Amino acid sequence: MGIEIERRFLVRGGSWRDAATGARRLRQGYLAREGGVTVRLRLEPGAARLTIKGPGGLVRPEYDYPLPPQEAAEMLERLCTGRRLDKTRHDVPHGGLMWEVDVFEGPLAGLVIAEVELPHPGHRLVLPCWAGREVTEDPRYATAALASAAAPPEG
Amino acid sequence: MGIEIERRFLVRGGSWRDAATGARRLRQGYLAREGGVTVRLRLEPGAARLTIKGPGGLVRPEYDYPLPPQEAAEMLERLCTGRRLDKTRHDVPHGGLMWEVDVFEGPLAGLVIAEVELPHPGHRLVLPCWAGREVTEDPRYATAALASAAAPPEG
Repeated sequence: MGIEIERRFLVRGGSWRDAATGARRLRQGYLAREGGVTVRLRLEPGAARLTIKGPGGLVRPEYDYPLPPQEAAEMLERLCTGRRLDKTRHDVPHGGLMWEVDVFEGPLAGLVIAEVELPHPGHRLVLPCWAGREVTEDPRYATAALASAAAPPEG
Repeated sequence: MGIEIERRFLVRGGSWRDAATGARRLRQGYLAREGGVTVRLRLEPGAARLTIKGPGGLVRPEYDYPLPPQEAAEMLERLCTGRRLDKTRHDVPHGGLMWEVDVFEGPLAGLVIAEVELPHPGHRLVLPCWAGREVTEDPRYATAALASAAAPPEG
């Protein structure tokens, strides 16, 4: 089992862009989120992954597997209706760690969230000036919840 | 995408055992079943698979991937609480197709279900004498539902 130790922050302003070293467009969707377990598909140009995460906030068990991109695209289209989103992920090194700044699109346009994976739960994080309110433990900002929020209204 | 075309029947008596050619013990659990999408883990001696099925009764889209058995065992233990079951699956050839007769264990002991995968939806099935009521479209007998029913009561 892997362990994911991740903190998440809302992002203030655009000054992080000056430090960004790369970007890629991601489409992701959720086959399920039940009882704290999420099953996520993520597709980027030429690669796809299936990621299973267990319950938790800061620290979550995580299992991650490569998938054939064509099959991931099919599943995103057919099986993740109402539970998918598009975003551009920017790599922003800061304080010895790689931050990932996600700029959401579509119904979530305007929302920007920064994530950083910690080497251990007690790691003392050096916050960049553009890191706003922490949302690590706020279920409204869990990406699976955002994916549902991004869905067009039914009917 | 694969397509699963499967019919399922309750089993009467034990005469199918005379025709069985093999058996293996399976543990399986569900990471999720939401909106008709199921994400299943299945572990047998030395092998494990992750299977994602879309909505449907007789005909369902299906995606299937091998998993490291040790990680599948961990996920079954940690992430499928209340959604797993054990059964012994017997291979029983009949009428030119391979039937699979599942003998459930634990809280589901006494339940025996036969499944058969069809080459196409209109295939004319030759029913064995031990095939009882068909439950293909009966959601109570979907294995994901049985896995929840097999869970010990909470609290």
